[in-house]
Amino acid sequence: MRTPRFCPQCGGSTLQRGLPPGDTHERLICMGCGYIHYENPKVITGCIIEQEGKYLLCQRAIAPQAGTWVLPAGFMENGETTEQAALREVWEESGVRAEILSPYSIFSVPKINEVYIIFRAIALEITGQYGPETATCRFFAPEDIPWDSIYYPAIRQILERYICERQAGVYGIYVGNDDTGMVHFIH
Amino acid sequence: MRTPRFCPQCGGSTLQRGLPPGDTHERLICMGCGYIHYENPKVITGCIIEQEGKYLLCQRAIAPQAGTWVLPAGFMENGETTEQAALREVWEESGVRAEILSPYSIFSVPKINEVYIIFRAIALEITGQYGPETATCRFFAPEDIPWDSIYYPAIRQILERYICERQAGVYGIYVGNDDTGMVHFIH
Repeated sequence: MRTPRFCPQCGGSTLQRGLPPGDTHERLICMGCGYIHYENPKVITGCIIEQEGKYLLCQRAIAPQAGTWVLPAGFMENGETTEQAALREVWEESGVRAEILSPYSIFSVPKINEVYIIFRAIALEITGQYGPETATCRFFAPEDIPWDSIYYPAIRQILERYICERQAGVYGIYVGNDDTGMVHFIH
Repeated sequence: MRTPRFCPQCGGSTLQRGLPPGDTHERLICMGCGYIHYENPKVITGCIIEQEGKYLLCQRAIAPQAGTWVLPAGFMENGETTEQAALREVWEESGVRAEILSPYSIFSVPKINEVYIIFRAIALEITGQYGPETATCRFFAPEDIPWDSIYYPAIRQILERYICERQAGVYGIYVGNDDTGMVHFIH
C-alpha cells in the first residue's frame, strides 16, 4: 500500500517514523493511538506451462505496459496457498486449467518488495477464455519468444533460466534476485 | 495489519467492502477518496540449521507462547531477499552466522495468510549472543526435540518432514499447507 497519511485505526494525522520497543526496524507509528504500521513484501505466484517444448505467455491488455508479454502470474491473495494462487492466476489470465508439477523459483526483487514463486505446470484444458487483463495468449518456442517485450525483468530471467535447464534436462530451484540468480539442484 | 477503520489516505471513516472495477476479489474501499485497501499474505523466512545430525531450535522469551521452541524464523521485511531475511532472522534469534545451502520449504498457512519459506543452512559461527526474543537456543538430536512445545504447527510439520528426508538421505522441496504437504523431488 501507499504510505499512510492518516492512522487507519484512529484516523489521526500524526504518523512518525520510529523504532518500536524491541523491534529491529523503524516503522511508521501513530502518535495518537500507538498503532504501528508494518510493511512487508508481496508474493507473486504463477506458472511456467510447457507443451511440446513451447511456453505459454500472455499479452497484457491493460496498463502498465499493455502489449508486453508475461508468464501468467499475479499477486497471491489472503486465504490462498501459493499453489492455489498460481493456478488461479493461470486460469484468470490464460483460461488454462493447469496442474502443478513442482516449484521452480523463489525469486526476490527487493527494490520493489516482491517475491516471485513460480511453479512448473502442465495444461489440462485450454479454454481460450480469459479475463480482461489479457489481450491474447500463445505457446512460444524458445526461439520465438518476444524477449524484448517481456514485461518484468524477473519473469524474463526466470524463464530464460528455465529454458536453459530444460535443454540440459536437469531442473533445479531458481533462487536469487535481480543481481544474482542461482539454481539449486536438490540432492 | 488489522482491518482499517479509517482511510489511511484521506482519514475518512466511510470504508465499505466492494468489488473494484476489473478486480476479482472484494476489497475495502474508501467512499470518500476511492482508496482501495489490498491485503496480502506475509512471508516468514528462516532456516533449518543442522550440525552433526542435530537441529538448532530457539526458545521464545516473549509472548505469545513464551517458553515454546521454534526454528529461527520471522517476517520478511521490505528491501530484503528471502535469503537475506532468513539469515537475518537466524542471526537475531540465535546469534548464529549461517550460510544457506538450498531452499527447503514453500509452505502456506492460508487461514492466517502466511507463507513459510525455509532454507537449509549451516552454521559458520555460533556467538551465543542473541536478541531479546530468544530465551535460549540449542541443537537437538531428533529424539530430544521437544515436539509438543514447538510453537507453530507449520514449523513442526516442516521440521518433521525434513528429518525424515535426512534419514532417507534424499532432500526435496516441501510444498503444501496444513492439510496436505508434499515433497517435490526435483529431477
